Order: sequence, then structure tokens, then C-alpha cells
Amino acid sequence: MKRILITVEYDGSGYYGWQKQPSKPTIQGEIEKAIYKITGQNIEIFGSGRTDAGVHALNQKAHFDLSLPIPISKLAQILNNQLPDTIVIKDAQEVDSDFHARFSLKKKIYMYKIFNSDFKDAFLARTSGRIWQELDIKKMEKASKLLIGKHNFKGFASSNTCTENFERTIFDIKIKKDKDFIYVIVEGNGFLYNMVRIIVGTLVDYSLDYLTLDDIKFALENGDRSKAGRTMSASGLYLKDAIY
Amino acid sequence: MKRILITVEYDGSGYYGWQKQPSKPTIQGEIEKAIYKITGQNIEIFGSGRTDAGVHALNQKAHFDLSLPIPISKLAQILNNQLPDTIVIKDAQEVDSDFHARFSLKKKIYMYKIFNSDFKDAFLARTSGRIWQELDIKKMEKASKLLIGKHNFKGFASSNTCTENFERTIFDIKIKKDKDFIYVIVEGNGFLYNMVRIIVGTLVDYSLDYLTLDDIKFALENGDRSKAGRTMSASGLYLKDAIY
Repeated sequence: MKRILITVEYDGSGYYGWQKQPSKPTIQGEIEKAIYKITGQNIEIFGSGRTDAGVHALNQKAHFDLSLPIPISKLAQILNNQLPDTIVIKDAQEVDSDFHARFSLKKKIYMYKIFNSDFKDAFLARTSGRIWQELDIKKMEKASKLLIGKHNFKGFASSNTCTENFERTIFDIKIKKDKDFIYVIVEGNGFLYNMVRIIVGTLVDYSLDYLTLDDIKFALENGDRSKAGRTMSASGLYLKDAIY
Repeated sequence: MKRILITVEYDGSGYYGWQKQPSKPTIQGEIEKAIYKITGQNIEIFGSGRTDAGVHALNQKAHFDLSLPIPISKLAQILNNQLPDTIVIKDAQEVDSDFHARFSLKKKIYMYKIFNSDFKDAFLARTSGRIWQELDIKKMEKASKLLIGKHNFKGFASSNTCTENFERTIFDIKIKKDKDFIYVIVEGNGFLYNMVRIIVGTLVDYSLDYLTLDDIKFALENGDRSKAGRTMSASGLYLKDAIY
């Protein structure tokens, strides 16, 4: 028995998220189907965490246990031959038997891709979130500083979040502009439901003067969702990396 | 009553093609829904032709008749506000009352986007067709010369094609390479079912030595589908323009 860690890229726009669901296409479901086709065994895979419907990944990580003697160096290619083209296994390697894709996690990095343009573009709709008014990345950077560090992020989570513990640590937020795109890269030890999309929406709404810095501080100190910004669309969110 | 011609861009990857279908998302269906939201009227739109499930458009054309006094200069924006982001009305203008998006057509231009790479890329899967072996565009150009002109294209149509008349004229085929992409641009007076996808598959299969020039000539002269090339995936096909 070998424990395998895979690195997965996916265009999530046609999937109902990571987590397996009966009769709906999901990333976990498709990968487990591909493993079944190769091994004839129902093998469960464990992701670094779920991603929501429509959310993408550049380097999602997941582990599973393999008892058949399939050469690890060929495993990514063998799986890719069975997977839809929107899901790509970029790497497969053996890890220690006590490794766990979720519980061994040290850091997660998300990227949000804003298409900042007053033109609509049909071909960017599935893979970015559009803001038509011009954004000011200096202002977005200023607001982002408030969020870095260990905070109670209750005000930056969906009200559907099922947890007792809203404390998370944001290590860094970077904002980069490239032509009509603004990339917001958020590193943290973990994220609440919709947290990255609300963080980015807060930077956007501050840039557009829909929010003040005091509103953001209030949302952070009082866990008040109504004082934080909009929830950006899932289409612009990418799980960029999971670090162990 | 004014006759309106619209120019439409769409990412077809999430749609069951152009033509309206009960309870399935289609481009025509979404645009008619948007018109209904604005006018309260069930107005039928007439496209330059259908596109299949998964096929895209850069400049699809369609007409419809509008009796309400909506300013034409604002119509594209008003419709876009009601449409999904994957469908964009790029232009709306008034045309003569005897104009018909299908019957007035002089020429249609399709583009096929080949992702020519031995790497899979999840984010190109919905908007290109991948060939992993290296293609030779000089060879593709050579084969394309055989297809230009007026021919019986029965060998280059899906066997599901319902028509008596297989004669079509191809005015031009251009092939351009840009990094990992090869674009095949086909201009004609009309196209049979799957014809562009089979033409491109034939150029690909000749480049890869799966077919000879004699096979292609035979397919053309005898209407023999089995001597033409593969049908490329819908994901790489774009209706580039419809010319009146």
C-alpha cells in the first residue's frame, strides 16, 4: 500500500465543486471515477479542502492509497487519459503513510482574477470576475493591510458558515495589475466559507468608495458581515496552492 | 415595427447550441428570454444559422422585429444587462424590413482553434481542440488547397446530415500559427453539418500521415466520409463572421 499525493489543475466552471455528489459532476467524483477505471477499485481521495461550484484550481492537492503496483512515474498520465480535459493531474508522487492532504496542511494560497473592464467578454466570463468601474490598486492595497494577521473573520464569512471558530491568520495579500486584469493573491492558514471572495469584494468596494476603512475595521472587530464588501463571483477564484 | 440585426459573441461551452430547446440552455433561448424581460413580448429571433452544442461565436448574426420604441443605440447594453455573461450583444442596428439573417447571407467564416501541445491545460479545454502531436502547417496548407472551390462535400459531412444538396463553395482556407495555437480559418457560401470540424480534422490527419492526398481526393470525388479525417471537437470551433 502506497500513499499518493496528486497535484490537480481544473477549470471548475462546469462542475458542482470539489466534493462528490450523487448524479452531479464534481472534481472529486471525476477523479475517483478515473481511479476506478484504472484499478477496478472504489478508492476515496482526500483533498486539501473543498472548492465551491465554479471555483478553479491551479494546484489543488489530494491524497489516496494505492495497493496495485502501478508505476508512480506514469500515474499522472494514466489518470489524465481517463479524465475530462478540464481536469489535469499535473503531478503524482509517493508520500509518507501518515501524510494527510487536509490535516498536514500548513498554508493555502488563493488567487482571485478580476477582469477590470467596461467591456463584457463572453470568453472571460467563466474564468474571471468582472468589475466594470476602474479600480485603484493602491487603495485596494491600503485596505488589504487591515486584514493581514490573526483575526476573527466572522464578518468575512458567508452567514451559512458552520463553525464555532472564526479565527484565521492571513499571512499576506498581494495585488498585481496586468493589462485589464487585477490579481489578488491571499495566503492564509485556512479560510472560512466564501472568505476569499468576501475579502476581494471588500477591497473592491473600498476602492469604489462603497465602504470606508472604518467599515472594514468594524466588520473585523464586530464580526459584522453587513459592513464588509460584496461576495465576488466564484468564476474568478482559483486555489493556487496548498503548502505542506 | 423595426427590423433589428444583432451581432452576438458567445462562449458556447455551457450551452446546448444555438437553437431553442425546451428546458435546456441555448443561445437563442437566452436571447429570447432577455428580449422578453425587456419587452414583455415573445419575439422570435432568426440566426444566420445554428451552431452545435459547445461551439462558440465571435460574430454570430441574428435578426428580430421590434415594435416598442426602444432606442436602438441603447439596445445592446439593455440586452446585455439581462443576459448571462457568456453571451454578449456586441452591436444592434436597424436593417431593411426584407433583410433576413439566414436567407440574405453571402458568406460565412469559421475559425478553428487548435491547441497544439503535448501538455494538457484544463483552462483551454472548453475553448480549443487539442492535438498533442506536432503539426506541420505547410502540410496542412497543401491539403487545404484540394478543398478550395465548388465541390460535393458529402464526404466531409456527418452521416446525420439531412440534405439532398451537398454542393458548397469554399472560398478560402487560411492557416496561422501563434505560439502553441494553430488557427484554421475557413470561408464558404455555406457549410454542411460538422463540415468545418471534418475539414480541420482532415488537414490534421494529413499532417500526421494518417491520410494521403489521394485519400482526400477520393473522399471529395466519391463522397466517402471514411476517407476524410477525424471530426475535431466542438470546443475549438468559432463562428467568426456572417457576411451579407
